[in-house]
Amino acid sequence: MKSFGYAATNATTPLGPFEFARREVGENDVCIDILYCGICHSDIHQVRNEWNNAIYPMVPGHEIVGKVLKVGSKVRKFKVGEVVGVGCMVDSCRQCPNCKDGLEQYCFKGFVGTYNDHEKDGKTITFGGYSTNIVVNEAFVLSVPSNLSLPGVAPLLCAGITTYSPLKHWHVKEGKKVGIMGLGGLGHMGVKIAHAMGAQVVVFTTSPSKVADAKRLGANEVVLSKDEAQMKQHIGSFDFLLNTISAPIDINAYLSLLKRDGVMCSVGIASKDAKLEMNRLIFGRKSLAGSLIGGIPETQEMLNFCGMHNITSDVEIIPIEKVNEAYERTIKSDVKYRFVIDIQSLKKG
Amino acid sequence: MKSFGYAATNATTPLGPFEFARREVGENDVCIDILYCGICHSDIHQVRNEWNNAIYPMVPGHEIVGKVLKVGSKVRKFKVGEVVGVGCMVDSCRQCPNCKDGLEQYCFKGFVGTYNDHEKDGKTITFGGYSTNIVVNEAFVLSVPSNLSLPGVAPLLCAGITTYSPLKHWHVKEGKKVGIMGLGGLGHMGVKIAHAMGAQVVVFTTSPSKVADAKRLGANEVVLSKDEAQMKQHIGSFDFLLNTISAPIDINAYLSLLKRDGVMCSVGIASKDAKLEMNRLIFGRKSLAGSLIGGIPETQEMLNFCGMHNITSDVEIIPIEKVNEAYERTIKSDVKYRFVIDIQSLKKG
Repeated sequence: MKSFGYAATNATTPLGPFEFARREVGENDVCIDILYCGICHSDIHQVRNEWNNAIYPMVPGHEIVGKVLKVGSKVRKFKVGEVVGVGCMVDSCRQCPNCKDGLEQYCFKGFVGTYNDHEKDGKTITFGGYSTNIVVNEAFVLSVPSNLSLPGVAPLLCAGITTYSPLKHWHVKEGKKVGIMGLGGLGHMGVKIAHAMGAQVVVFTTSPSKVADAKRLGANEVVLSKDEAQMKQHIGSFDFLLNTISAPIDINAYLSLLKRDGVMCSVGIASKDAKLEMNRLIFGRKSLAGSLIGGIPETQEMLNFCGMHNITSDVEIIPIEKVNEAYERTIKSDVKYRFVIDIQSLKKG
Repeated sequence: MKSFGYAATNATTPLGPFEFARREVGENDVCIDILYCGICHSDIHQVRNEWNNAIYPMVPGHEIVGKVLKVGSKVRKFKVGEVVGVGCMVDSCRQCPNCKDGLEQYCFKGFVGTYNDHEKDGKTITFGGYSTNIVVNEAFVLSVPSNLSLPGVAPLLCAGITTYSPLKHWHVKEGKKVGIMGLGGLGHMGVKIAHAMGAQVVVFTTSPSKVADAKRLGANEVVLSKDEAQMKQHIGSFDFLLNTISAPIDINAYLSLLKRDGVMCSVGIASKDAKLEMNRLIFGRKSLAGSLIGGIPETQEMLNFCGMHNITSDVEIIPIEKVNEAYERTIKSDVKYRFVIDIQSLKKG
């Protein structure tokens, strides 16, 4: 099987193609012929070992869409030929209270990551979606609604669920005023989903060039966050703020935009510490929260929601040869709004 | 009328007695013969102008218990001779959404503080409870359950409601594991109230000398927060943490003690900024929140709850002459757990 990634422990070399064998298809496993895989910013951190936990060889990619190629003897949920998806997780303990609540991302033992992790045997390295195939236990495979365009579905498996989960958890709906902070891969999904949930959506961005696009995506209003006068107009008015910004920001300024009992939730993992003025929370019983991707049942719910509302990610499709270039452009936020690799290009190579 | 406070704009002078006239008893007002008034740490900050908003002359005190001396012609809730209480607020706009929700502490226009503030006329200075009398609109006067010992009721009006309100708001009850961080004026009320709500209560303190007392107050367990091994035993186990500590602490260490969806709530106003590792919130969908005293309806609810569970504050009763000494001891946390002034001593003087 052909993959694209790092075969050696040399994180400074660009990604390249290499071949290796996937694990066998077990009785509860689904073997997927990968069609598209999104590029998540975290792929770059992992590949370059910026989080100091890289396992080489590494095949990145956790925004995977493909067709079922083969199923194990006990698989009941999927049939050969069906279109399916795989996100950030491929297994978890399935026994702890969080797993039993369908929130495997908070598994007590830590979920098994789609790549750069070990299967529950503690030995087998997991390899991600920059590859022709992947083998995943059916419990961690998702059904993809048939009406959606497949390249745009891939990023739903990470960027989509990462924004859907907190928006749903904190009851975003009609009558609520919701702010989406940042308009990148995560933010643009947040805008589409919050808009589809019926909320009044305000986008916060530093880029005047993004104003028109934010409105096209579903924002009712756009605030240039560096403009103090614009910020002040929204003081005390938000029910919920979704922080998708990875750069350091003044969270205190945003907390003052919340209503009483308002919540600001950060998503996306970065090494961002915040200097918090506790009084911003005390005056108004406000909360600062965090949320990590989403569980398997809610990922399916999100895909069904996106099917119903015809929501996909805005993507730029690239062949596998352009991955290294796409990484550089992702770092510069030079993409609207997610790169997706057409895995056909890997099969041809 | 005799009061105790600062007659002049000289915050370095100790408090002393002086006389002045209260406002007239309006048709909706209750004039209260003050019996006891608690000493809140914030009194010290205000009197010494440590928050840079002092208004002199100043009569501190917002934990007031007394008997109704006179009522205005339209007062319906109270009769002469009834035992009543007054807390941190004596008025608010009563029109904004927060006031209409009974959460006057978050009034859009700012509530009228019991002292060191101006009445809604914008001119009349409010004077607090270190005084023989106070005149308060009946809407901001509370009924005191008849079974409670009055000196111990006074601190309920601030320390009691400040802890009751978040414990109630975040659904503390039987089956929940609750941590009370700090065992001072606020913390000891938090322990009593959380215990009465049926929760499993764990107290966090730096003082081995407080262990026995914490258990006497209702704690199931006491953790010495400087003992890493003890802290580690509680990782991922708390539904709710109530932070009553005014000193700077490592909030990140405490956040790791929360369960998924757990909340840590800070109460008590101090100039405490926190260095927050956002990932502590993201991994476990946790929240860091704040809460300010409580509204008038929930203050009455708290008093009724305390009546039902026979809860009062543990107090040390002092005559008015000892106020300056009590301030010094409060700063050193040398009180179990609240000083209360016997206002009879002011009347005699």
